Amino acid sequence: MQRRFCYLNGEILETDQARISPYDIGLLRGYAVFDLLRTVAGRPFLLAEHLKRLRASAAELGLAVPASDAEIADAIDRLLELNEHAEATVRLVLTGGVSADGMHATPGEETFLILTHDLPVLPAPTYERGARLVTHEHLRECPTAKTTNYLTLLKHHDVMADAGAIDLLYHDGERVTEAATASFFVVRDGRVLAPEADVLPGTVGQLVLEAAGGEFEVSYGSFTVDDVFGADEAFLTSTTRGVVPVVEIDGRAIGDGRVGPVTRAVMERFDAAVASAAAATSAS
Amino acid sequence: MQRRFCYLNGEILETDQARISPYDIGLLRGYAVFDLLRTVAGRPFLLAEHLKRLRASAAELGLAVPASDAEIADAIDRLLELNEHAEATVRLVLTGGVSADGMHATPGEETFLILTHDLPVLPAPTYERGARLVTHEHLRECPTAKTTNYLTLLKHHDVMADAGAIDLLYHDGERVTEAATASFFVVRDGRVLAPEADVLPGTVGQLVLEAAGGEFEVSYGSFTVDDVFGADEAFLTSTTRGVVPVVEIDGRAIGDGRVGPVTRAVMERFDAAVASAAAATSAS
Repeated sequence: MQRRFCYLNGEILETDQARISPYDIGLLRGYAVFDLLRTVAGRPFLLAEHLKRLRASAAELGLAVPASDAEIADAIDRLLELNEHAEATVRLVLTGGVSADGMHATPGEETFLILTHDLPVLPAPTYERGARLVTHEHLRECPTAKTTNYLTLLKHHDVMADAGAIDLLYHDGERVTEAATASFFVVRDGRVLAPEADVLPGTVGQLVLEAAGGEFEVSYGSFTVDDVFGADEAFLTSTTRGVVPVVEIDGRAIGDGRVGPVTRAVMERFDAAVASAAAATSAS
Repeated sequence: MQRRFCYLNGEILETDQARISPYDIGLLRGYAVFDLLRTVAGRPFLLAEHLKRLRASAAELGLAVPASDAEIADAIDRLLELNEHAEATVRLVLTGGVSADGMHATPGEETFLILTHDLPVLPAPTYERGARLVTHEHLRECPTAKTTNYLTLLKHHDVMADAGAIDLLYHDGERVTEAATASFFVVRDGRVLAPEADVLPGTVGQLVLEAAGGEFEVSYGSFTVDDVFGADEAFLTSTTRGVVPVVEIDGRAIGDGRVGPVTRAVMERFDAAVASAAAATSAS
């Protein structure tokens, strides 16, 4: 649902008054990046990590974010207060700006937009029993940048709905890379395997996998769709959904088709990180 | 340069008053198609062909153009009169509309925008001596639809400028498909070879190649980058540039590096079609 206020180029505005130009290169040529973070206990979660990723995405397109981290944090605080969410997602959108010729970005004149949404919540059974995916051959054009191009995903909403799938799992004909809106991992012999190339660095993925050890180890490399079907477990990580077990892909069970022990351990790590952030907020 | 008037969702507006919503799915997710036509003697050229292609692009994304051909023609007429171009390009942009959740298009609520620009003109020597291209491995996501996604092209403006190239020539690792902003053809033994799959149908290409015979024949198939280097001639076709000879790709000459006879014949066909349209306008 559209919220009453947004941020655009340095100002907090009523959304109905916020105007994106018809000449914006983000609209005319899809030249734009974004990032999306969530709140925990009403406060931005992993904010520094998301701002770092936004700036990295921008740099890949030769764009710069026209605000400091402190200015962005302040704008987010004001929007969260004005828009009155229980929990929110915060969308930071950066385009190449208003383009006189409809073909070139305008460095130094980027369009910078912040919107907030209610945090969408997956049904609890998806976490308890696991989710389905559908594979699709596709490699994103700038895979290490979070661009606004979701053409392939939006064209396949029907395919996903028909399969009861929560996401598309992309592969490039050989290697599995990531899901359309999430990072993807498999588990084999107690070890988490993470795709090392041509993927967006996932903030939740990094949170739950970094400094792993104890319950599980993590190794980075490449794996195929067949490797996925031969894995013991699989799971997604995403900002809005956290850690989601994947138990079926293209109608085939992964492992024994149930949520496995390593995935549970990863889910617990994420829940602990969220609980810790919530506790820090209530203590402050 | 931004022109004073544009068309948005049924109305002619001052461009400064035209507002694209920050929630438009064309902005947030790149879910949009467009088409671009040019004028000849101030009148839309190949209008029916461009409208047909726009509707086909829209259908590929499950979108519908919310105006009849007659309504669009009328809107274009009014814009051309108000914006006072010598010759113009007319950009028709269709997005999936304002999206409540930032993830789904809103069928029946598409955003439909029309902008006009001055027709850009290539320097005459480019037609006389031929142009350069740079190859790049890339297959567009919905190649038969004209989507707004030009990420790969805009990222490579520098590479093109460094090489003195006017366009990027896309191949998928094997087959050559099209240039980023033009159709691409080669000539071998007096025959024009046209890529038959995974390309946008080009309105100028169809105009100059359909019902060919006499000076040259046309065959449709697939060819590789190596085939291109072994060809006698190569050329581009595009709405804004017409027929452009290509004499060098990645620093290597095509044929003898000069504009060849079949390319000249194709260029003459295009010039004749333009002259005919101009004569029809002045006679009416």
